[in-house]
Amino acid sequence: MILTVTLNTALDITYRVPALRPHASHRVTEVIERPGGKGLNVARVLAALDHEVTVTGFTGGATGRVLQEHLTGVRGVVDALVPVTGATRRTIAVMDERTGDSTQLNEPGPTITPAEWAAFQEAYEDLVPAMSAVALCGSLPPGVPVGAYAGLIRTARAAGVPVLLDTSGEPLRRGVAARPDIVKPNADELAELTGSHEPLRATQDARRRGAHAVVASLGPDGLLAVTPEGRWRATPPARVHGNPTGAGDSAVAGLLSGLTTHLPWPDRLSRAVALSAATVVSPVAGEFDRGVYEELVGRVTVSQEVSAA
Amino acid sequence: MILTVTLNTALDITYRVPALRPHASHRVTEVIERPGGKGLNVARVLAALDHEVTVTGFTGGATGRVLQEHLTGVRGVVDALVPVTGATRRTIAVMDERTGDSTQLNEPGPTITPAEWAAFQEAYEDLVPAMSAVALCGSLPPGVPVGAYAGLIRTARAAGVPVLLDTSGEPLRRGVAARPDIVKPNADELAELTGSHEPLRATQDARRRGAHAVVASLGPDGLLAVTPEGRWRATPPARVHGNPTGAGDSAVAGLLSGLTTHLPWPDRLSRAVALSAATVVSPVAGEFDRGVYEELVGRVTVSQEVSAA
Repeated sequence: MILTVTLNTALDITYRVPALRPHASHRVTEVIERPGGKGLNVARVLAALDHEVTVTGFTGGATGRVLQEHLTGVRGVVDALVPVTGATRRTIAVMDERTGDSTQLNEPGPTITPAEWAAFQEAYEDLVPAMSAVALCGSLPPGVPVGAYAGLIRTARAAGVPVLLDTSGEPLRRGVAARPDIVKPNADELAELTGSHEPLRATQDARRRGAHAVVASLGPDGLLAVTPEGRWRATPPARVHGNPTGAGDSAVAGLLSGLTTHLPWPDRLSRAVALSAATVVSPVAGEFDRGVYEELVGRVTVSQEVSAA
Repeated sequence: MILTVTLNTALDITYRVPALRPHASHRVTEVIERPGGKGLNVARVLAALDHEVTVTGFTGGATGRVLQEHLTGVRGVVDALVPVTGATRRTIAVMDERTGDSTQLNEPGPTITPAEWAAFQEAYEDLVPAMSAVALCGSLPPGVPVGAYAGLIRTARAAGVPVLLDTSGEPLRRGVAARPDIVKPNADELAELTGSHEPLRATQDARRRGAHAVVASLGPDGLLAVTPEGRWRATPPARVHGNPTGAGDSAVAGLLSGLTTHLPWPDRLSRAVALSAATVVSPVAGEFDRGVYEELVGRVTVSQEVSAA
């Protein structure tokens, strides 16, 4: 059983409109709703790969209830969300059919009280020992201390459970110092953390800050991994076109899937890169195309980087 | 007890954003949610005027449940909505703080099945005889026959209950022919019905088509009423500035309030004009400012039109 943590859960709503024009009235032609927040996306991909997953984080209000109803429909996912008084936020992506672009409207979401944060930590401590891995994903809601992930990482490591961190900014900086097993920053997050825009240098620097392994996601260039077992670049066989939403979450799912099934690093990276690419080409944002995944996973190029530093 | 019918109910959501930019990501700074659809707006104003109101129409899915929870919080409103399988629609108004303009996104809403429409008609027939007045408000959802209002008007008239119709297009045309007690078109609806852009001529024409009384809402020019008791123009004492959303619904509430308390026409019209103006000036769209209403209601000018036709 894998645990994914999503402190900033959301109900993701996609509206399709013929053309978005400010100050006009629009008839929405299609409405798609699904559980959102990075950890829930990771869980959905893991469940599709036949892993058992428990999800935790916060849920509240009518939107939280709807989110939980959607989760009930996902086979292989156990709902261990912690109730809060505030209402779970909605995010609305307005897809313009004419341009293919989307406009995003994100509700602020609830402020977590100290008592709610304490209740979450208690629930998390109870869940962690039974898990084969933990993923801590996404931003922190208002009210949760900026060092939250550092504490959750220490809890997992004390229980001997491997922990992956995928966040940004100060929560990432503090989290890395608590020595997570894996961090998966993208190029921007890595540059913000290290001050370097050179991927290999920045990835090595991130590792020196405390993470045991750093897997940087470099968009169409694939993944760059610096680990205790070596360094690798993993790249898809061809450039893929589509919607990158959720590609990073699919990479996280691939890394966790490979970790918990004890694959060597190159195979974990192949899985992560193939899932990412299969997510980009999927017509539904955040879903992956299983056929594309199965076709690509054997064709990812993984090359070892020889140490120069 | 007054009955308002809203076949196309909605959950109205207002998002405030600093500035709406297509294809950008926006943090919503304020979220306001409330029951929507014209008949529910009318009911809320009637309840604020201390009338007892029953609301009916359709409700479905998670959004329908949220809508009903909001209704539970409105004192004086009895929920007699009829459940359907489809989900009640959301409407989202994105308020741009910089320009004050709003961009509207309307979900399509459920398609009503023939069995659901039959169940509604049965519920309506059971409700009507106990009512002092019925208001039929707004557009028809997909699946409801275009002659729906005509049938509901005949049911009310057969029960001896006065019935007001506030809709547009073909449902208005068919409804007027069924001889409702009052129709309340705005200038555009009146012109579409009659082909005339001259308000007095068009209002008289609408009455000849079957309505016992026609009250045309002419925006800042107030109301023009052609009734069996005479013809009147009612105008606010001064031009008011603000958001006209819901002003027509407040006028309907004023007419119903005056009808059920047996006020003469000029007093009904004063109430309707004052409520309309107090809705325009209210900072919250669709709410009326009670102080402004009480200050204006004695100062509305009602002048009798001498027959020339």
